[in-house]
Amino acid sequence: MMRLKESAAHNGPLCVGLDTDPSYLPARIAAQFDSPAQAVLAYNTAILSRIRGAAACCKVQIAYYEALGAAGLAAYAKTLAAVKAAGLPVIADVKRGDIAASAAAYAKAHFSGDFEADIITVNPYMGFDTLEPFSAYAHPEHGAKGMFVLLRTSNPGMNDIEKLELAHGGTVIDAVGNELNRLAQQFAALYPTQTCSPIGAVVGCTQESDARQLRNAYPDIFFLIPGYGAQGGQARTAAALLDKAGGTVNSSRGILTAWKKDARLMQKEEQGTLTLDDIADAAAAEALHAKQELLSAAADCGQRV
Amino acid sequence: MMRLKESAAHNGPLCVGLDTDPSYLPARIAAQFDSPAQAVLAYNTAILSRIRGAAACCKVQIAYYEALGAAGLAAYAKTLAAVKAAGLPVIADVKRGDIAASAAAYAKAHFSGDFEADIITVNPYMGFDTLEPFSAYAHPEHGAKGMFVLLRTSNPGMNDIEKLELAHGGTVIDAVGNELNRLAQQFAALYPTQTCSPIGAVVGCTQESDARQLRNAYPDIFFLIPGYGAQGGQARTAAALLDKAGGTVNSSRGILTAWKKDARLMQKEEQGTLTLDDIADAAAAEALHAKQELLSAAADCGQRV
Repeated sequence: MMRLKESAAHNGPLCVGLDTDPSYLPARIAAQFDSPAQAVLAYNTAILSRIRGAAACCKVQIAYYEALGAAGLAAYAKTLAAVKAAGLPVIADVKRGDIAASAAAYAKAHFSGDFEADIITVNPYMGFDTLEPFSAYAHPEHGAKGMFVLLRTSNPGMNDIEKLELAHGGTVIDAVGNELNRLAQQFAALYPTQTCSPIGAVVGCTQESDARQLRNAYPDIFFLIPGYGAQGGQARTAAALLDKAGGTVNSSRGILTAWKKDARLMQKEEQGTLTLDDIADAAAAEALHAKQELLSAAADCGQRV
Repeated sequence: MMRLKESAAHNGPLCVGLDTDPSYLPARIAAQFDSPAQAVLAYNTAILSRIRGAAACCKVQIAYYEALGAAGLAAYAKTLAAVKAAGLPVIADVKRGDIAASAAAYAKAHFSGDFEADIITVNPYMGFDTLEPFSAYAHPEHGAKGMFVLLRTSNPGMNDIEKLELAHGGTVIDAVGNELNRLAQQFAALYPTQTCSPIGAVVGCTQESDARQLRNAYPDIFFLIPGYGAQGGQARTAAALLDKAGGTVNSSRGILTAWKKDARLMQKEEQGTLTLDDIADAAAAEALHAKQELLSAAADCGQRV
């Protein structure tokens, strides 16, 4: 997590989301590959070769790869490896959550072997005991891995459970956040020379009042911030979450489908001359644009970036 | 789900959990295979050939297969196929939960293609909009799949979020349960000739008072019931949950490691003569024993089984 924080300080706060659905590629380009999974991998690789300096890290949403079956998960493993080869920290957006031995199996699955990531996302719903098998890998001698626990997600349905008001005051978000604060401090103490705990939180940037409140409530926790761009979250809301301990702001679809907003590329697509390089160039340009938008929003908030 | 309910009425309420960690096999037997994944698949297949009439269905916990990487997920796909070939409904215990397009990708992943299951488990934490891409597959014309939504899990940490008391009364479990009731009724209406909605709930059998309360609160919802056996849940608690709309009671580790409780087999293990057939026989005998224990507990509660 410290490596990610340093990368964000150096390259800006953007997390490039390789949540690559095959439908994000022009059908004619996808058809040039043996399978949708291979097309996705080729697009990911082409993007990775173009985002040096524009991204703090990459997030890979495993759902899109699972949807392509065994071939998709092979492309997933190769995508994780390609992110590491590009020198970027890789976040596996797996949102796993289970109990005891099953959680330990998930932790092993995503912190070692074919699907080894640097940081993963975790769902806390079944209780805080379910976090332990994951946090075990955050120990310095056990991989020094990181995790982002779901705290306040970016979808409209987050009102259904996360925002429920509790009898003893606060919401479900506060109950999870209090435990995360405790856990983040506990693990920060294992890294006395670092300024960042390996335990982070997912906080969506779709509502500015929530963003400010959560940033103030958890000043020492590094955030993974979804919701920016295609999901409607504004740069200034994201910037509010980048304050204090900071965070990384994910954009996936906005980057992966940037070519569709470029009139010149849409014309090439109609003419049948659009290439993989063209759409990867558009993705990289959009990543750079997103980075700059986030940095200026942060500067407008008076943050040192 | 209706097929599962009918299978439970015919074969008894036991769900055989193929949550097969390689460590559940004797090391010498596992070493006879090219990989841990192949050993797991061979054990699963040997068990499936022996449980005819003892099981309503099988549940496969994907975490153990993910932990073995790409080879593990190949064994997972083959295990799902083997359960179907044995004529049993297969529940994929994946506990996925995500938003919008990502949830749709997970639904596609586990309701079609290499990893197609009949029923999956789903985590509702991020909100009820996250259930829609899964429930879409429960329509008669879109696969007639089923899902079990996490309601009350069987781990100690379920107190941390699920049991939180809400300001407007009830707990998080009640908030989820109310939505599940609505959803179950909505989908039951699509199957007018059946007595079972495709929308079910996961309710652990580790606490009897909770079991009775939840069975009474949701009389029309079919339950997937974990926690029996190795996790400490009693047959009488499970039986309380089998009342009204009924359910299926999972046992995984108790069945998969039954050979370790058989003195004769442990002696064979020491002598180096224990075989895969021996441990699969022990698993099948334990499954039959569990079925009978559950049926007598249900009979003791005055249920017609």
